[in-house]
Amino acid sequence: MAILSDLGTEILVPACAIVGIVFSVVQWILVSRVKLSPERHSLSNSSKNGTAEYLIEEEEGLNDHSVVQKCAEIQNAISEGEFSIADLSEHLFPLYRISVCWNFMVAFAILIFVFLGSVEGFSTKSQPCLYNKGEMCKPALANAIFSTISFLLGGLTSLLSGFLGMKIATYANARTTLEARKGVGKAFITAFRSGAVMGFLLAANGLLVLYIAINLFEIYYGDDWEGLYEAITGYGLGGSSMALFGRVGGGIYTKAADVGADLVGKVERGIPEDDPRNPAVIADNVGDNVGDIAGMGADLFGSYAESSCAALVVASISSFGINHEMTAMFYPLIISSIGILVCLITTLFATDFFEIKAVKEIEPALKKQLIISTILMTAGIAFVSWIALPSSFTIFNFGSQKVVKNWQLFLCVGVGLWAGLIIGFVTEYYTSNTYSPVQDVADSCRTGAATNVIFGLALGYKSVIIPIFAIAVSIFVSFSFAAMYGIAVAALGMLSTIATGLAIDAYGPISDNAGGIAEMAGMSHRIRERTDALDAAGNTTAAIGKGFAIGSAALVSLALFGAFVSRAAISTVDVLTPKVFIGLLVGAMLPYWFSAMTMKSVGSAALKMVEEVRRQFNTIPGLMEGMPSLITPTCVKISTDASIKEMIPPGALVMLTPLIVGTLLGVETLAGVLAGSLVSGVQGGMCPSSALVGSANCHLCFQHCGAWDNAKKYIEAGASEHAKALGPKGSDPHKAAVIGDTIGDPLKDTSGPSLNILIKLMAVESLVFAPFCCTWWPAFQIWK
Amino acid sequence: MAILSDLGTEILVPACAIVGIVFSVVQWILVSRVKLSPERHSLSNSSKNGTAEYLIEEEEGLNDHSVVQKCAEIQNAISEGEFSIADLSEHLFPLYRISVCWNFMVAFAILIFVFLGSVEGFSTKSQPCLYNKGEMCKPALANAIFSTISFLLGGLTSLLSGFLGMKIATYANARTTLEARKGVGKAFITAFRSGAVMGFLLAANGLLVLYIAINLFEIYYGDDWEGLYEAITGYGLGGSSMALFGRVGGGIYTKAADVGADLVGKVERGIPEDDPRNPAVIADNVGDNVGDIAGMGADLFGSYAESSCAALVVASISSFGINHEMTAMFYPLIISSIGILVCLITTLFATDFFEIKAVKEIEPALKKQLIISTILMTAGIAFVSWIALPSSFTIFNFGSQKVVKNWQLFLCVGVGLWAGLIIGFVTEYYTSNTYSPVQDVADSCRTGAATNVIFGLALGYKSVIIPIFAIAVSIFVSFSFAAMYGIAVAALGMLSTIATGLAIDAYGPISDNAGGIAEMAGMSHRIRERTDALDAAGNTTAAIGKGFAIGSAALVSLALFGAFVSRAAISTVDVLTPKVFIGLLVGAMLPYWFSAMTMKSVGSAALKMVEEVRRQFNTIPGLMEGMPSLITPTCVKISTDASIKEMIPPGALVMLTPLIVGTLLGVETLAGVLAGSLVSGVQGGMCPSSALVGSANCHLCFQHCGAWDNAKKYIEAGASEHAKALGPKGSDPHKAAVIGDTIGDPLKDTSGPSLNILIKLMAVESLVFAPFCCTWWPAFQIWK
Repeated sequence: MAILSDLGTEILVPACAIVGIVFSVVQWILVSRVKLSPERHSLSNSSKNGTAEYLIEEEEGLNDHSVVQKCAEIQNAISEGEFSIADLSEHLFPLYRISVCWNFMVAFAILIFVFLGSVEGFSTKSQPCLYNKGEMCKPALANAIFSTISFLLGGLTSLLSGFLGMKIATYANARTTLEARKGVGKAFITAFRSGAVMGFLLAANGLLVLYIAINLFEIYYGDDWEGLYEAITGYGLGGSSMALFGRVGGGIYTKAADVGADLVGKVERGIPEDDPRNPAVIADNVGDNVGDIAGMGADLFGSYAESSCAALVVASISSFGINHEMTAMFYPLIISSIGILVCLITTLFATDFFEIKAVKEIEPALKKQLIISTILMTAGIAFVSWIALPSSFTIFNFGSQKVVKNWQLFLCVGVGLWAGLIIGFVTEYYTSNTYSPVQDVADSCRTGAATNVIFGLALGYKSVIIPIFAIAVSIFVSFSFAAMYGIAVAALGMLSTIATGLAIDAYGPISDNAGGIAEMAGMSHRIRERTDALDAAGNTTAAIGKGFAIGSAALVSLALFGAFVSRAAISTVDVLTPKVFIGLLVGAMLPYWFSAMTMKSVGSAALKMVEEVRRQFNTIPGLMEGMPSLITPTCVKISTDASIKEMIPPGALVMLTPLIVGTLLGVETLAGVLAGSLVSGVQGGMCPSSALVGSANCHLCFQHCGAWDNAKKYIEAGASEHAKALGPKGSDPHKAAVIGDTIGDPLKDTSGPSLNILIKLMAVESLVFAPFCCTWWPAFQIWK
Repeated sequence: MAILSDLGTEILVPACAIVGIVFSVVQWILVSRVKLSPERHSLSNSSKNGTAEYLIEEEEGLNDHSVVQKCAEIQNAISEGEFSIADLSEHLFPLYRISVCWNFMVAFAILIFVFLGSVEGFSTKSQPCLYNKGEMCKPALANAIFSTISFLLGGLTSLLSGFLGMKIATYANARTTLEARKGVGKAFITAFRSGAVMGFLLAANGLLVLYIAINLFEIYYGDDWEGLYEAITGYGLGGSSMALFGRVGGGIYTKAADVGADLVGKVERGIPEDDPRNPAVIADNVGDNVGDIAGMGADLFGSYAESSCAALVVASISSFGINHEMTAMFYPLIISSIGILVCLITTLFATDFFEIKAVKEIEPALKKQLIISTILMTAGIAFVSWIALPSSFTIFNFGSQKVVKNWQLFLCVGVGLWAGLIIGFVTEYYTSNTYSPVQDVADSCRTGAATNVIFGLALGYKSVIIPIFAIAVSIFVSFSFAAMYGIAVAALGMLSTIATGLAIDAYGPISDNAGGIAEMAGMSHRIRERTDALDAAGNTTAAIGKGFAIGSAALVSLALFGAFVSRAAISTVDVLTPKVFIGLLVGAMLPYWFSAMTMKSVGSAALKMVEEVRRQFNTIPGLMEGMPSLITPTCVKISTDASIKEMIPPGALVMLTPLIVGTLLGVETLAGVLAGSLVSGVQGGMCPSSALVGSANCHLCFQHCGAWDNAKKYIEAGASEHAKALGPKGSDPHKAAVIGDTIGDPLKDTSGPSLNILIKLMAVESLVFAPFCCTWWPAFQIWK
């Protein structure tokens, strides 16, 4: 038996979740202390805030009257800017609010109910258990009902977290700009705290809702844990379905707006980026938040929910579930609970224990967050494995039971945790302009856009190597020790520091917008330098976040794949059988097909946006002269509608493939398809060039598109002799760099991240519908 | 028993091979009838050739004196041009002649001998057979010796065929230009005949050498067919190793020369393409032949040799081999023999039965070649399956024997044959500027290089879909009917029309060079129009050829994979075991790694070339003024040396991975790696954008890079209103198209085709070294 009592578990998990929620509320309150009303900035008011005044004084020259006067003006300008930016949250809703999204949720919920209910012909009679031989389990109809409920819960939790994340992000960006006047440290803390709100809310909500759902379901299910945890998998499906909207829809949204704003505004009309005259600018800013905050949040939430569900479903048919050991059963949730505490302490390192005094300290501070949380979490995992697990137990291993020790499970979680860190840092190495890869890409711009693209592609291919080995090692270790349960907890290990990871990730777009506001408000060069530094650090760490996202997606998909194989009672997936091999081949092709669709979607949506912006410039008099664009919502609406419409084909590909293959070609071919798309999807996602979709590989590639972006920034910044030689803006190498950046943009922000969803959603859907496929396949089968 | 007697088989196979060789010699003689000496073109001489005169007369205006005079001048110019082009064959040698290549052959031969000999400690005693239980087989040392011999034979045959192919290509191009004066039909026939020389020589040589080797080996092996055909697999390894030089080395060579010539000549010095003043021009022209003729030839020869070996090795442990049914055993060779006859008849359709009268008939004529050969071959296969096979027999199926009917084997071969045709035509659809995909890509150039690249990428991803389904269907059908033997014969089916396929393929570079010669010689606009039309048709059909190459590579690799799995006595390759799964994941990453290496290699080699050409322009007085460049060989040498040096890292990756993985991690992990790289490598190769490496997928993608090339040509040609709107040369859309073309170039000519070699070579090497890995793995194993 575990050291921790069942009662202790029942207190610990919700307590940690509530601590997380409280902590994020506190962070929000701290951010809200930065007042946006211009009045406060008269000298008398600002003296209320001791530190702020101190910092203003610290900055040389800020004391003389003219500067204070200027500050007030900027303040005014920002207030106005802030209002339009604050309105963003109103515009963010469309993506979620519009009927399509709800219709989808409801339609899919009905589908789940009907499909799963049909397994036993909607019978209300108990049925013999599948794994727990000799016992009676709840009817399939109950599973259908509870799967539907947990699906809706998962979807709503994801939606809520994403919405709150965007709310705080749009709430915090102008405040970050204001704080930048007091010093880079203050600005950093504001941006980081806002990111933490998102991170902790999401991690704690996800945990709490899951915990409550399990406890409520248990009232009905009682001792039928096999059925209970099968029904809970709907939670993961719900979370991932919303991620489809966040990542695919959001990705199309953000790039359509971005391209539309740039092509017509910058290129055709020659007005600067983020110029308020451009009707698409608001849509563009909204897009940043939709894609990077809501999309990333929904994606990681999906991974988190799915890996928990995959672990729980395997645990329920292992000794934990068979012997009803609650504490051991909740091991995945306890890991996440401790993760919240660890991240809480880690956050204090950034916001309270140390203070950033110079621009060059920002990036190390963010990286330290990752390292500190990983080290602390390692100890946390060891502790949890010691108190929550029996010293020896058995784990379901495709039909047999495998004996596992508690220290082996510690190693499984630990290897996932550290693999995440390694993938993150490798990604950073290939996308940060501090290191030679991006500098080489920048250098290749000398000979034009073509060499830039080729070089970026080669870099992208190369950057996949180490992450794939890191994933391979963690799979091997966790698989060897604890079969598919090991993979699931390895994924959980990687995601255990999700609160910190998301805080860092959300920090990026907040700083980006803060910079935009400083630019729009015409603030002084020194303020902009500070927000630019914050932004640059954010870009780098965003790459780390994407590394985590794809690494965890790979592990999660594999864990779900394992759970699916277990649920479908497949004992081997033999490459040497034709049905598996062609599944593998076709599955590996899916990421390509999917990427072709998303790229086409971005193109179509962008075209609509371009036409609308052109139309407004041509038909609305006074727009170019600075008359405020009252028709801004039109652009937002176009982006929203287009993204929803354009995500249907790729969405349908993802949602229908498992059902069609599973029902017509059988679960073994489906297993092949899943393995193929997993192996293929990861690689493309990782490629810097992201030009590569391919395989686990696929995804790896995509995220390094950041290399092109940063190569452009490197030339623009001109921080070194080398960079100066390539610049300045407008030089031929810079033009070549811009082309590379434009190519990389849709790849890294739409196609790449969408691949995460492809591989995860197909796997979790297969798992949820496994009983359906198993039941109906014999009726439809094309081959044996 | 089969209808065809053993004696009949022993006559039929060599007879067909000899017929093929004789036919190609006849074609050569026919081509050589076109005389290059200017004297012949005085009116009295040309009257010897009745048809030629008739055709000249047919062309309006060619009869008046000034035109004849001009022809003589052109003739003179060409003769000079021809000499330098004819010298190419002297320069082609370096790639093969230089010590590295021989050293490699010898070193690898020694490696094979030592590794395979070590299996039984170089014992000369007979050993119990592995499959044919109860019988005694020849010692492992004998297998080592004969494998080494067959390896050398395979390498030499590939070398010889490639060399002769280049010889005829450089011999024929000026003759094609001359014939273009008489009419497009004459020129077409000359170019096509020359291509046929290459095609038939390669197909017939490959068959004959294999046939002789088997018969000679049989003198020693006697009834030990298991050992005999295991030793014969070295033939495939030898062929593929040379393909490594042809495809990877050749690919680096051709692109280094191309980029070097273009960057310094066209961009920096502003002299036209193919200008004789450019010191790299010869290297560039040599490169075309090395890459497209020798590379493609070696690649397809490798596929052909490997699929024959894979089929034979599986047959030897099936009922054919166990019962010593020679005719049935030789079924793969008989298919190839009939293929030569079918291709011979097909060729006559192009050269004798019909005559091309107008430019627009060229492309249909080439496509008809493929269709005719496929239809005739279908009948041929049916015939062979009827006469050469018993009506029922058993095939080795991973440990058990599977009962197969002769009509099932007919379907296996047939499905491969037709899948090849489908892949070819889909590839053509996505790369020919007759259809909307390329026109859309051209259209996307309006908004710049970035949209061009993105559009090309999306197109590339999309183009993978149908070919992957075609491959999947042929795998499923052939696998279901006859296990791995079915796959091997499906590959043979696809390659059975290799002579026609290669003829069409080699026709491309010949026409290309003919156009270059017309340009260099300053021939009239109308002549150039004809050679351009020949060239354009060649570009399209080259894409078809590449489709065949990758499609067959996928099937061949799978067949070799199956043979390897059989030889290593693996009964399942279960994705649900960690060692297989990580093999799959890492294997899927290898195409990325490999592509990163080859792209870097092209970059480095091109840089060296650029430096040399710059140095020559700067230091050699009079070069720009047209003084003939006596230091041309320097450029050829640089390209040769660089390509050899730069191919070492990617070559080492391919050659060492199977040995290291197989010895240290075991054959099951190696099986995973092979499956992963196969599934991943095919896709990348197919992508038009070729920006995708990924998965069987990988390779598919690459070859469609041709879409960018053709989009550029489409704009340049300005044949339609649409195209005219985008042009002319030098317009912004055209510049954008040039960037896309430059990006696609190294991908489609180096990285993409190299992936064929990656997947095939790793598979055949695993097969040859399977006994070694099985023996030594237990000593080194890291895990069980």
